[in-house]
Amino acid sequence: MNKCWLRCTRCKSVFDFRLIGKCEKCQGTLLVEYDMNRAHDVFTPTKLALSNNNTLWRYHELLPVRSLDSAITLGEGVTPLIRMPAIEKQQSLRRVWMKREEQNPTGSFKARGFSVTVSLLAERGIPIAAVPSNGNAASAFAAYAARAGIDAHVFIPKDCPPLIVEECKLYGAHTTLVDGKIHDAAAAIELRKDQMGWFNVGTLREPGRVEGKKTMAFEIAEQLGWRLPDVIIYPTGGGSGIVGMWKGFMELRRLGLIQGTLPRLISVQEEGCRPIVDALKGTENQEESITNEASNPTGMRVPIPPDLDLLVTILKETGGDAISVSKSEMDSAQRMLGTLGISSSPEGAATYAGLLKLTETNGLSGEEEIVLFNTSHAMKYSSVSPSAISKRQLADYMI
Amino acid sequence: MNKCWLRCTRCKSVFDFRLIGKCEKCQGTLLVEYDMNRAHDVFTPTKLALSNNNTLWRYHELLPVRSLDSAITLGEGVTPLIRMPAIEKQQSLRRVWMKREEQNPTGSFKARGFSVTVSLLAERGIPIAAVPSNGNAASAFAAYAARAGIDAHVFIPKDCPPLIVEECKLYGAHTTLVDGKIHDAAAAIELRKDQMGWFNVGTLREPGRVEGKKTMAFEIAEQLGWRLPDVIIYPTGGGSGIVGMWKGFMELRRLGLIQGTLPRLISVQEEGCRPIVDALKGTENQEESITNEASNPTGMRVPIPPDLDLLVTILKETGGDAISVSKSEMDSAQRMLGTLGISSSPEGAATYAGLLKLTETNGLSGEEEIVLFNTSHAMKYSSVSPSAISKRQLADYMI
Ligand SMILES: [Zn+2]
Ligand SMILES: [Zn+2]
Repeated sequence: MNKCWLRCTRCKSVFDFRLIGKCEKCQGTLLVEYDMNRAHDVFTPTKLALSNNNTLWRYHELLPVRSLDSAITLGEGVTPLIRMPAIEKQQSLRRVWMKREEQNPTGSFKARGFSVTVSLLAERGIPIAAVPSNGNAASAFAAYAARAGIDAHVFIPKDCPPLIVEECKLYGAHTTLVDGKIHDAAAAIELRKDQMGWFNVGTLREPGRVEGKKTMAFEIAEQLGWRLPDVIIYPTGGGSGIVGMWKGFMELRRLGLIQGTLPRLISVQEEGCRPIVDALKGTENQEESITNEASNPTGMRVPIPPDLDLLVTILKETGGDAISVSKSEMDSAQRMLGTLGISSSPEGAATYAGLLKLTETNGLSGEEEIVLFNTSHAMKYSSVSPSAISKRQLADYMI
Repeated sequence: MNKCWLRCTRCKSVFDFRLIGKCEKCQGTLLVEYDMNRAHDVFTPTKLALSNNNTLWRYHELLPVRSLDSAITLGEGVTPLIRMPAIEKQQSLRRVWMKREEQNPTGSFKARGFSVTVSLLAERGIPIAAVPSNGNAASAFAAYAARAGIDAHVFIPKDCPPLIVEECKLYGAHTTLVDGKIHDAAAAIELRKDQMGWFNVGTLREPGRVEGKKTMAFEIAEQLGWRLPDVIIYPTGGGSGIVGMWKGFMELRRLGLIQGTLPRLISVQEEGCRPIVDALKGTENQEESITNEASNPTGMRVPIPPDLDLLVTILKETGGDAISVSKSEMDSAQRMLGTLGISSSPEGAATYAGLLKLTETNGLSGEEEIVLFNTSHAMKYSSVSPSAISKRQLADYMI
């Protein structure tokens, strides 16, 4: 495998590759760097085209495991990128793509990060770990930990969709519901982790999740024939996806595999909890975001992102933006995507709602090529009751 | 595209490729045949290895569409085939694989068939169609019909899992719940289809679903490096998957891409509804199967398979078998797969329950290589209530 080390995004200090959480000097976020001279020889379009590995581990030369044999894989990544001709036509846009991340194991994009993170834990013999999550990260961590024989403890806000809680239990995770938001879940872990011996795999606390998410950038580039879209609209909570994709595109550019400017990364949040939108506008008002109870229990509800400065820097650097959409706009977008044959999570629907908002406000040029992300299935968030009455209401007819 | 025609599996009559349902002479099942001389030149491991199409349409030279451009695709097929080392170790088996069909669009293996079927409908400008289904076929048909702008009518037994009914509605299908089993749903369609102008896309009534399912065989062979497993354990209801895989392996053998005997195809059914098991044993007792209410609403509950003779012939020809498992064995298998990081449908869990039953009864040799099929996610069958009480019961702790 390739040589790698860590660099602090804030103070630029370099560290040997270890699972040390934050920068030991300034508490900044640590990201992995690789020997790009070596990568230049082994990470090539030709070699990738000949790879018979149809998971994100096809990119193993730019992933931080010691050996491909130690990868904990459930079949994650290489999700479809499909054209959305109906959206193109209706919105007068040249090309719109949907990245179908719900086709990952555990039915969500969170599988990517935890495949890499759990591989790192397994290589080091770490037997027990914990994660705070809005739901999908918890169930993905639970599945990969189960595969690796690692004891998983997940902490989730108590209003998390019940099917996701059920999924965590199915994978055997010790599941705790927290009366609060994801940062309260994180605090509950920090309070107990030393006594319990938990390793904390929360967002940006170890390098695996960002490295796993960066493969979304690799895939988009490879699937488009080593060409980049102009705009990526991405639902953002903690932000590891934005950091990961930005890092992935930067690595591809450094290798000469892509040219020109990076895609404009546009974060979508829900109106009731939009710290990234506020921070980008320079109107930070964290207190309001935290206390606003109108926001719904989706992966975007992260009142205190772990590294807001880094997110703002990245979004600005790509010429991107952060926008917010309302619950009713998300619901409407979810219904519209349904009529196009796509079952979308609220977060995935939010990216389409974001596209509609951007076209309304002239935030997109008709010539731009746009990628939306569907992060999970609608059904994971369902609260359909099993009673016959509700089923009868669901159907058009009973005969 | 390749030239193709239809041949009756019963009377062997040949017909031009048309959507004519059953054999016009004997009402036998019609299967597609292709110009294998042409396929020999264009359907090769080398060409496939270089294909950048990561859907089942990579096999388009052996699919019956007129043009690849007319394929209605949502990103189906090329699902992961992952090793299950924990099962191998526990059951002293050399190699056990899980084909993760739940990673298809609509979260189920039914996407394959309907991608091909709906493409055939769309090429012919057929504007409206209907399907009887135990659930997942209905939602898959609904999604592909939505993508193609075709009006979908789905008929489902009223005890179908509510989330699947909800999914059909999300995709905009006209959804009717039927007080009965899948053959009652089929009868309801037959009663109305002429007046309503519906094309019936029920199991084995048009060639697309079998052709789509046969790509599972192509994928297994390609993913194993053009080598075959010894045994495939597959949950069977109507049987288009068994017919499709058998047909796919036969085509590969005819092309010289695989050698030797075909995998033993082993159908799994639930004890309360096992017409294939009974037919194979020569103890047919359809009446009992039909009236036994103990069987659960899964895709395996098909009391009257549309072509039982064909299924029995295929299973016998491969040296295979049909076995039944109980609901409690399925539930237990589902829980065990969960602790290995896999969320399985009852049908998918039934294949693992079947493996356990076969190892107990010396039905498998430890040297054999076995493929299990996970056809869908556990969550699609969930009946978790959204109330806070049930969530509290789900979790280990509330803090
Ligand atoms: Zn630092
Ligand atoms: Zn015939």
